[in-house]
Amino acid sequence: MPARTVTACVLIIGNEILSGRTQDINLNHITLKLGAWGIQVREARVIPDVPNVIVDTVNAVRAQFDYVFTTGGIGPTHDDITADCIADAFGVKLVINAEIAERVQRRPAPPDVMAARMRMARVPEGATLIDNLTGGPQGFRIENVFVMAGIPAVMQSMLDSLEGKLDGGDIVRTRSVTAYVGESTIADALRAIQNRYPHIDLGSYPFFRADRYGTTLVMRGTQVPDLDEMLTEVCDAINACGATPEDIQHG
Amino acid sequence: MPARTVTACVLIIGNEILSGRTQDINLNHITLKLGAWGIQVREARVIPDVPNVIVDTVNAVRAQFDYVFTTGGIGPTHDDITADCIADAFGVKLVINAEIAERVQRRPAPPDVMAARMRMARVPEGATLIDNLTGGPQGFRIENVFVMAGIPAVMQSMLDSLEGKLDGGDIVRTRSVTAYVGESTIADALRAIQNRYPHIDLGSYPFFRADRYGTTLVMRGTQVPDLDEMLTEVCDAINACGATPEDIQHG
Repeated sequence: MPARTVTACVLIIGNEILSGRTQDINLNHITLKLGAWGIQVREARVIPDVPNVIVDTVNAVRAQFDYVFTTGGIGPTHDDITADCIADAFGVKLVINAEIAERVQRRPAPPDVMAARMRMARVPEGATLIDNLTGGPQGFRIENVFVMAGIPAVMQSMLDSLEGKLDGGDIVRTRSVTAYVGESTIADALRAIQNRYPHIDLGSYPFFRADRYGTTLVMRGTQVPDLDEMLTEVCDAINACGATPEDIQHG
Repeated sequence: MPARTVTACVLIIGNEILSGRTQDINLNHITLKLGAWGIQVREARVIPDVPNVIVDTVNAVRAQFDYVFTTGGIGPTHDDITADCIADAFGVKLVINAEIAERVQRRPAPPDVMAARMRMARVPEGATLIDNLTGGPQGFRIENVFVMAGIPAVMQSMLDSLEGKLDGGDIVRTRSVTAYVGESTIADALRAIQNRYPHIDLGSYPFFRADRYGTTLVMRGTQVPDLDEMLTEVCDAINACGATPEDIQHG
């Protein structure tokens, strides 16, 4: 069966990440989750709450990747402009979604507060909903773009609701092994192994721990027998350097 | 004096971030540090170890921002391709830099290991060095692109060495205040305040803590008197909602 690759781009929308006020943790969660579903995140962009930047970026990446996932900017305040920008990007208008409105209206509030909250019920025409398992307002999907909240717990609940609903490709599996050997010492052997397995990505991630140099070697690919062969070759290379393969992991 | 804005883009180069194996912490550090120097990070991209993606991205963003800072891919192994890609992006060849070579050669090694390590001495023709205060091989700068290591401690030491050497613009200052009030409750007042101070960015960051909804309001701008006036208005708005301004911070 030929390999089937499904790609994604993650857009993290929010001044708070670019100012350094907030450390993003959504990208890491999304990449791991999508990876398990056979969707490979190939790029991520962190962009500010600036309408033309959001519109242009969405239009650039939705043409380039199978899926786009956005986080941030779908709350009730003036700086929540993601829905407006997605509508602009697709050239459609915003409409009130009855299902979101129903959820928003469940909690009573004075008219002005309800009006603000109802901003969250606006979705681009043609969008379908992404459930929010926390019970709050839903996210939405339009074509291949999935619009989710920025608050990690809410984003995670929206992503969870998509399980089984996306077309995944071959799942990227990993093998990793750690050795207390300098990267340069094993570099030639790694290059030769990489050349023999061009369809498997071999990464070398050096570290300095407990006064010793080491590196973790990570193999990523969709074909398990080749991954296992490659792991054997990498372990042989570690032994040939006089070191010991440690902490072998299969993912 | 007219406002002077200096912008930057951060490129995080590395499959390990996109696979979810590694949680990036470099972006947050860089944005805070550059912010203090008067350089505003306006966008960040996480891209894979794929030559044409790196080349095209570098060329796109170096034309668009005052500065570009890259992290990752400057070690001695086959997957360290950042220097090659930067040279390609600028249409120049790689040359051996004598200062880096001298550092690399300080630690003795067998010829094949030294050859691998010497990969780190290759820089694009015309590049100047970014010091590495850890004593390891330096990073480099070519025009407005700064190429740094991916290991956080090394990246931080390279960035530290740039202090005082970059042209900064006006520094973005912040005021923030937290209130236990739902975002929707205060949304109208915030919108009105934002409209009165178009040159200051007012962000609302909701949270749910100890069974209560709240939001932190963050004002960001270069003009301190306006920031202080705006903070007063935001605190008045919080009081008008029957809540109390808490944890006021000046940054």
